[in-house]
Amino acid sequence: MRQTQLFTRTLKELPKDETSYNAQALLRAGFIDKVAAGVYSFLPLGLRVLNKIREIIREEMFSVEGQEISMPAFAPKENWESTGRWESLDILFKIAASDKKEYALNPTHEEVVTPLAKKFIYSYRELPFAVFQIQTKFRNEKRAKAGLLRGREFLMKDLYSFHLDQAGLDAYYDRVSDAYTRIFDRVGLGEKTYFTFASGGSFSKYSHEYQTLTESGEDIIYICDKCRLAINKEIIAEQNTCPTCGSSELREEKAVEVGNIFKLGTKYSDAFALGYSDASGAKKPVVMGCFGIGLSRIMGTVVESSHDERGIIWPEYIAPFRVHLLSLNVNEKADEIYKNLTEAGVEVLYDDRDVSAGEKFADADLIGCPYRVLISKKTLEAESAEVKKREETTAELIKINELTAYVQ
Amino acid sequence: MRQTQLFTRTLKELPKDETSYNAQALLRAGFIDKVAAGVYSFLPLGLRVLNKIREIIREEMFSVEGQEISMPAFAPKENWESTGRWESLDILFKIAASDKKEYALNPTHEEVVTPLAKKFIYSYRELPFAVFQIQTKFRNEKRAKAGLLRGREFLMKDLYSFHLDQAGLDAYYDRVSDAYTRIFDRVGLGEKTYFTFASGGSFSKYSHEYQTLTESGEDIIYICDKCRLAINKEIIAEQNTCPTCGSSELREEKAVEVGNIFKLGTKYSDAFALGYSDASGAKKPVVMGCFGIGLSRIMGTVVESSHDERGIIWPEYIAPFRVHLLSLNVNEKADEIYKNLTEAGVEVLYDDRDVSAGEKFADADLIGCPYRVLISKKTLEAESAEVKKREETTAELIKINELTAYVQ
Repeated sequence: MRQTQLFTRTLKELPKDETSYNAQALLRAGFIDKVAAGVYSFLPLGLRVLNKIREIIREEMFSVEGQEISMPAFAPKENWESTGRWESLDILFKIAASDKKEYALNPTHEEVVTPLAKKFIYSYRELPFAVFQIQTKFRNEKRAKAGLLRGREFLMKDLYSFHLDQAGLDAYYDRVSDAYTRIFDRVGLGEKTYFTFASGGSFSKYSHEYQTLTESGEDIIYICDKCRLAINKEIIAEQNTCPTCGSSELREEKAVEVGNIFKLGTKYSDAFALGYSDASGAKKPVVMGCFGIGLSRIMGTVVESSHDERGIIWPEYIAPFRVHLLSLNVNEKADEIYKNLTEAGVEVLYDDRDVSAGEKFADADLIGCPYRVLISKKTLEAESAEVKKREETTAELIKINELTAYVQ
Repeated sequence: MRQTQLFTRTLKELPKDETSYNAQALLRAGFIDKVAAGVYSFLPLGLRVLNKIREIIREEMFSVEGQEISMPAFAPKENWESTGRWESLDILFKIAASDKKEYALNPTHEEVVTPLAKKFIYSYRELPFAVFQIQTKFRNEKRAKAGLLRGREFLMKDLYSFHLDQAGLDAYYDRVSDAYTRIFDRVGLGEKTYFTFASGGSFSKYSHEYQTLTESGEDIIYICDKCRLAINKEIIAEQNTCPTCGSSELREEKAVEVGNIFKLGTKYSDAFALGYSDASGAKKPVVMGCFGIGLSRIMGTVVESSHDERGIIWPEYIAPFRVHLLSLNVNEKADEIYKNLTEAGVEVLYDDRDVSAGEKFADADLIGCPYRVLISKKTLEAESAEVKKREETTAELIKINELTAYVQ
């Protein structure tokens, strides 16, 4: 994309009430706009990142046979009363409609997906299956000061699975856990993300969170470096040793929860009388699992965990563009290179603007694409482009005819 | 996709309060689920259709240089007060949050996109540009009885354009109008959709709607067959002749509005003081256009306008699958054909279930894929498959080795 065509630009002035680093960096670079506390628009660069995270998650959900659906933001009050959460869930947004009925703005979808599954499950033959969606959720937060880490409105993937029995759920739970590990690797958070033991509720000893280390995290986790896992605050209150090796050498760190997986058991099946007939005709309750990941939260977490004093450093697979091509008054030649790279399938943001070299460099650092490719009279004299990786400090000259292969 | 893997099935019992044809047909075939009046989930088959409509619209928006963004459902009360619509728009959902502030659930986004544009427009150099989103909207409807034609929660594409002057808007308006014509052609509504003159507001003599003929439509339009256009009820009250040829031979028809395009002029620019400096440094207001299409409404309209007594007949480019492959007790051979078709890039729903031929035929008609391909002992004796197009009554035998080419 040509930067002269992009309607956003990097900004110097930020909203005064924005105190989180991730939102400041994303606002400054033109990835998001703030509409209210905890409510953001995603602008072209930001939506590109979000869509890349979305495609990675979709692929991994398809790899565990998730069937994609899309459930609504609205659910009738009665659905939430069936589980007792109309009263007990303090972050639930409630809204009165002109049909005289009340609705919740769903912060999670057990109250919608369980009655949905009930319409299609009669006998053991229909089980197991799993459905997922990538959809906007709402939470009535008292304070929303953490940028994309905690929004009133945010994008989530939620997967719900339906099983014959606990053994079926247990096996699927492990498969989804592996898919989550692949997701965090692919979005660039793998090294800083810990599989973390959390409280399991009534159907399982543990549930699990995926916690990413960051100074801005609201959670505290306790890491066992030997097993490369962690336990959260709830668990350490009951047991101060690693659940796997028993070691008590645990390292305390700040972290943000980027995903969670939970064995629901029959909690929601019981609330909605979701059962099936087994091979002998006996009625049994369906055993459920749920598996969440926040997409906008991942985006915010990546920014918190991957930046320097000059701006964001996007991991390769979720960068808005792979290459930021900077032309210093040589647009004719740069146009040609832009065309060649684009035709080779490389995603290029092309700074064809008539502004100073300093401004182009500063913007490239703020925006944070993996490769900065500079074309100037000087580089062209050597039939080259100057290529610098975002996270490195030194650049190197690459021959123009080797450029595509180099950045691909 | 194998039908044994699909968690939905065709249903015999429908919600008693569902009176619209489109919702009944889509519920029966397992495309959607009803959560509340005017509030639906999109199930795997339905989401596939919606995503195809989405991709067609995105392509056409990119063809008119639309930059994709995603704005939130929430907007602060103050934004809506700036335009006077907090009080005047009766379908506006209002919600109180625990930060003691009030928010609207946006039914349209002028109140969000205009302040957004203001952050990036300083001078004439930034203009023109256009942004679009495909996003969930909310309308506080008193009654919602038309299925996907009028929802409390629905998916829309909205494009907003920003121009130096009226001439710039006029030229862009015509380009988007052409893109809309292509969209309605591609989703299969071209023949029944009329470019319809509507009231223009204060900045233009006319705005325009795209109206699709259907018995279930809530609108009345007056068609000039000579010019292949229509005028709506507002216009006929003032002028009972064709705005193009002046003919008074107008045919009255029921229709549903599937899109609208509107010259906003400076209405919202004035409300938010959105201006720019021209080349001489003088301050001028930005001239805006807005262009809407309802995606879920298109899906409902297609079902209303393309079905027979046995079920839905999907147009080619938005069908959930191109081929519905039915195996009558010859799954081994059918597995092979399924694999070959899929590898050739043909989208196949494969009925590999152990149910009667009659049930398979009935379901294929309900679901409505363009090609029904039947494999049985009898067809295999002739080294063939029996192929029937959904809208035709007769089938023909096609040699297995010619099948891929035939349905591609």
